[in-house]
Amino acid sequence: MKDILQEFRKRWLEKPRIVLGIMTGTSFDGIDLAVASISKTNNTLLFKTLAHSIVEYPKELQKYFSQITSQNHTSVSDISSFNFLHPHCVAEAINSFIRSEEIPQIELIGYHGQTIWHQPTSISIGNYTMTSTFQLGSGSVLAQKTNIPVVSDFRSADMVFGGQGAPLVPIFDRDIFADTTNIVVLVNIGGIANISVLFPNSHKPIAYDVGPGNVWIDYITKKFYGLAFDEGGKIAKTGKFSDELWEQLLTIDFIEKPYPKSTGREEFSVQLLVSILDDITISSEDILHTLAKFTAYCIAKEILFHSNSECKVYVSGGGLHNDVIQSYIQSYLPKATFTTTETVGIASDAKEALCFAYLAWRSMAGLPISLPSITGAKKETISGSISFPF
Amino acid sequence: MKDILQEFRKRWLEKPRIVLGIMTGTSFDGIDLAVASISKTNNTLLFKTLAHSIVEYPKELQKYFSQITSQNHTSVSDISSFNFLHPHCVAEAINSFIRSEEIPQIELIGYHGQTIWHQPTSISIGNYTMTSTFQLGSGSVLAQKTNIPVVSDFRSADMVFGGQGAPLVPIFDRDIFADTTNIVVLVNIGGIANISVLFPNSHKPIAYDVGPGNVWIDYITKKFYGLAFDEGGKIAKTGKFSDELWEQLLTIDFIEKPYPKSTGREEFSVQLLVSILDDITISSEDILHTLAKFTAYCIAKEILFHSNSECKVYVSGGGLHNDVIQSYIQSYLPKATFTTTETVGIASDAKEALCFAYLAWRSMAGLPISLPSITGAKKETISGSISFPF
Repeated sequence: MKDILQEFRKRWLEKPRIVLGIMTGTSFDGIDLAVASISKTNNTLLFKTLAHSIVEYPKELQKYFSQITSQNHTSVSDISSFNFLHPHCVAEAINSFIRSEEIPQIELIGYHGQTIWHQPTSISIGNYTMTSTFQLGSGSVLAQKTNIPVVSDFRSADMVFGGQGAPLVPIFDRDIFADTTNIVVLVNIGGIANISVLFPNSHKPIAYDVGPGNVWIDYITKKFYGLAFDEGGKIAKTGKFSDELWEQLLTIDFIEKPYPKSTGREEFSVQLLVSILDDITISSEDILHTLAKFTAYCIAKEILFHSNSECKVYVSGGGLHNDVIQSYIQSYLPKATFTTTETVGIASDAKEALCFAYLAWRSMAGLPISLPSITGAKKETISGSISFPF
Repeated sequence: MKDILQEFRKRWLEKPRIVLGIMTGTSFDGIDLAVASISKTNNTLLFKTLAHSIVEYPKELQKYFSQITSQNHTSVSDISSFNFLHPHCVAEAINSFIRSEEIPQIELIGYHGQTIWHQPTSISIGNYTMTSTFQLGSGSVLAQKTNIPVVSDFRSADMVFGGQGAPLVPIFDRDIFADTTNIVVLVNIGGIANISVLFPNSHKPIAYDVGPGNVWIDYITKKFYGLAFDEGGKIAKTGKFSDELWEQLLTIDFIEKPYPKSTGREEFSVQLLVSILDDITISSEDILHTLAKFTAYCIAKEILFHSNSECKVYVSGGGLHNDVIQSYIQSYLPKATFTTTETVGIASDAKEALCFAYLAWRSMAGLPISLPSITGAKKETISGSISFPF
């Protein structure tokens, strides 16, 4: 078996492959699609984004999906339906995407599936102690509905060997963004902010959560201005820095924890912010200004820890567009060069989908798709299950 | 992609492959394992059973598995755990089986997974109308734990094209048992009795349920004698035929329904039997005798419909060992030749596990694994998802 598999993989690497990546987040807001041409010649990876898009979930299904993934409302019948319905919706999105874009024949799909449970810390079941992860959506159904081979189930293998099965993006970051002379830092400012640090000529990046991204900013903007987010940081710009709020923010335990560390929205809850603000007299625009600086501080502090400020920083995520966050980060890191992922052809909105296109391509090539230094696994694993429709 | 896949499949077929099949039934009683050497030369299939075994589920897990697959007690957390725990137990069974048997290096595993839902009739979800099936157990986890490539998710593809995703055994029956001159009938007498009919030089077998197998016999034996089953039909032998019971049994609708038809234990429920017996004065051994004849009748009636009695009959399942059932079948079919699957090297206990070894082998070879004439699908499908551990 190994001999014929090796031959197959060698031939897979012989020419550029057109691969589509699919990512659907836990908020059920949309299906991210991105297509890339991927090849490797003389040990150099050539990765080129060809097209990308976000397709909304059908509204009624959004509700249905949210319902059945909440722990108290799940029947095996619903799980079974969802396992067919998710790839069905994804296939519809892919088929309309293919029709609307000028893209070459897609040879492979990387389908992450919908995470409905991720248990990276061990639990006991009878005499067994185990971790697990579960992404719904049959790769086989998607393959049949698109007539394109599909790679799915990316996270299980890493967890079998003691890894957390996450994050998987650092291997993509390393291979796309790493530099032979500079330390490169990828900053993603979503609800929570996280960084990947890539050292020159090292295969072992570092990646972890650093603190709040937009989670608190979005809450305040919604509460006081009825807006989904502070576009461009416009409101924060009208505010000024508050020493009083700042001192309270600095007391949050997570900020001083050494890396690697990870957090969720539960550690940066609305309750915590409200309790902090309870003791302070402050205007809403000053809150937004100070929170924007705090986000910048949490990011810059960790970058300085690894790089002494001389580095190349790629910023992505919603916080990229908040000018107050951006200018504070830049003032904290005067010697850093700032850029966006777009400069190397990676649309920041499509980064995760492109990552799963890349991981599927690696899976077909027999290359490991997770980094033990990041996930904590005992070894590198070839991962993913392949479904052929022909 | 198609070119390199074709080359891979051609080379897969170049020599005999050692394949392990795994089947775990819905009663959670055990893990069936069977290993076969499979090859195809000059269009002739060579299939040889090398070893087989049944390993019990760990007791505490039996209970746990039954619990989480009952519709009202399922959380996504349990589904996720089960998806890792099932292949973990199967891997333990495989590893101990490999150690205890003298078998060559296994190259591939066919892993059916644990069916927790099968919905072959359409249901509506929002604007979508759909069928689905769900076998728990990550193929990727099993591949990593055994270090052997795994094929899983056998039923989904067929259902995408309108098939029932079942039964899958007929393709195995056809390729192993079909004869160029005789009609061949495979009779399996489990709780329910079913038959596969293979016509000479035809690729389209017929397969369906014919009536009760042992379900009622086992119930009466348990109730009146405290035994799990009527071993060898010993008790039935001491009884005699009851006209009165017979006339009642013949009124059951299912018996006269034309094929194809399928049934579950719910159509041959204890309640129905009890209500039939309520109006009759009869001894328990006469019940067993008459039920044994009824099982034989339901089987023979359908065989006669297709074959005019001149055929080769392979009997398998628990009912194979009930002499009363057997002698009645033989008297109904005087011109038939009776034999067991063992005569062609297929241990009847291991038939399902061997079937999934064969289907996995076909999947790697790019051969379809379900028969549209049986499942009702619009076309033949290449099926299964492949997980490579290396």
